[in-house]
Amino acid sequence: MTPKHFSRSEIESMEQRYRVKFINSLPGYKSLNLVGTISPDGEDNVSIVSTVTHFGSAPPLLGYVSRPATVDRHTLSNIEANGCYTLNQVSTAHFAAAHQTSARYPRETSEFDATGLERVFRDGIEAPFVASSPVQIHLEFRQKIDIELNGTVLILGEVKDVFVDPKLIETDGNIDLALAATAAGSGLDGYYAPELISRVSYAKPDQPVTDLATGEELWKSC
Amino acid sequence: MTPKHFSRSEIESMEQRYRVKFINSLPGYKSLNLVGTISPDGEDNVSIVSTVTHFGSAPPLLGYVSRPATVDRHTLSNIEANGCYTLNQVSTAHFAAAHQTSARYPRETSEFDATGLERVFRDGIEAPFVASSPVQIHLEFRQKIDIELNGTVLILGEVKDVFVDPKLIETDGNIDLALAATAAGSGLDGYYAPELISRVSYAKPDQPVTDLATGEELWKSC
Repeated sequence: MTPKHFSRSEIESMEQRYRVKFINSLPGYKSLNLVGTISPDGEDNVSIVSTVTHFGSAPPLLGYVSRPATVDRHTLSNIEANGCYTLNQVSTAHFAAAHQTSARYPRETSEFDATGLERVFRDGIEAPFVASSPVQIHLEFRQKIDIELNGTVLILGEVKDVFVDPKLIETDGNIDLALAATAAGSGLDGYYAPELISRVSYAKPDQPVTDLATGEELWKSC
Repeated sequence: MTPKHFSRSEIESMEQRYRVKFINSLPGYKSLNLVGTISPDGEDNVSIVSTVTHFGSAPPLLGYVSRPATVDRHTLSNIEANGCYTLNQVSTAHFAAAHQTSARYPRETSEFDATGLERVFRDGIEAPFVASSPVQIHLEFRQKIDIELNGTVLILGEVKDVFVDPKLIETDGNIDLALAATAAGSGLDGYYAPELISRVSYAKPDQPVTDLATGEELWKSC
């Protein structure tokens, strides 16, 4: 294929919604999670985010990007007020209800009630989990970083508890996301069911890349 | 299913490699991109990253997380010295060679030469693209944000040029990642081929979520 060149000025001249969908496709596939929070008044809230990213394992840190004064506002103010929140992987079974949490409901409406996603509260954790999520994570809010380039914020949290069916955990600690029926996202509105191609060996110079299950060589030095 | 509770102290007591794989599975699916850079001496470099995230569309901003003093070091110092770099979506056709870029080659070895991934230089852009990547992006380095919680850094760049086959762009600007054969990642070593479940309508309170192609209602208010 011969790729076409889209210069920045051509991108800027795209119709606004067209441009937003184009730009949102550039990173590739996205993680999909539901953020569960509760306000100081006890009103809970759940909203879908597609930017949850691994920042480190020691301590276990996850981050996500939030717009400061839009849809995500209730979630953000709840996290800052309460100090804890949950992340719940979106599954292929409830992706449409998860998508619906992005609708701009009034503040007094809990998206749990509006979408029918079932909330679960657990002892000692002051934020709601999504019952039907295959991987449910309790986080402690650690830092908000203002991104001055565009006014967004990066929310960093430390993993405190994880709730997951042990059948989904492989012998080496990896969670089998395909077995979990976790969904992947793309752009603003695409939902995907990924199929495993391969789990591969740790890469070392002058060693082939092999499939962990079959031992098949998938790449080798010429 | 009844999920099992893993407390933070149980997570900390996991064997180190087990724990790293477990923690890396928590965000869900990951974007997979190859970062192309060149040093002031003209030595190019390509390395796989699984943390590229959309930070905004106006201006178009992408970020990724880098460890400051490890494998990624050449890439990071090249970006800082040169001011530009490329991101190239990993495809299901070259995922094993893309994985091999994570091997710790000596500084004088270009991962392009070591892995056989084909480089492309384009007029006026001082960083190499990956020829076989379906979506190739030229970025200008804008900011490095130190994450003090764990010593990682967030690299933010502004999209300057995009190279993509126009056949992959849908009528509304969305890039069809399944048609592009873009791969998704999970954990440290999982490579996936996602299948589209649905592209869905923009969510509004009291409106159903429908499939954009068929009009089928996928969720509606009770």
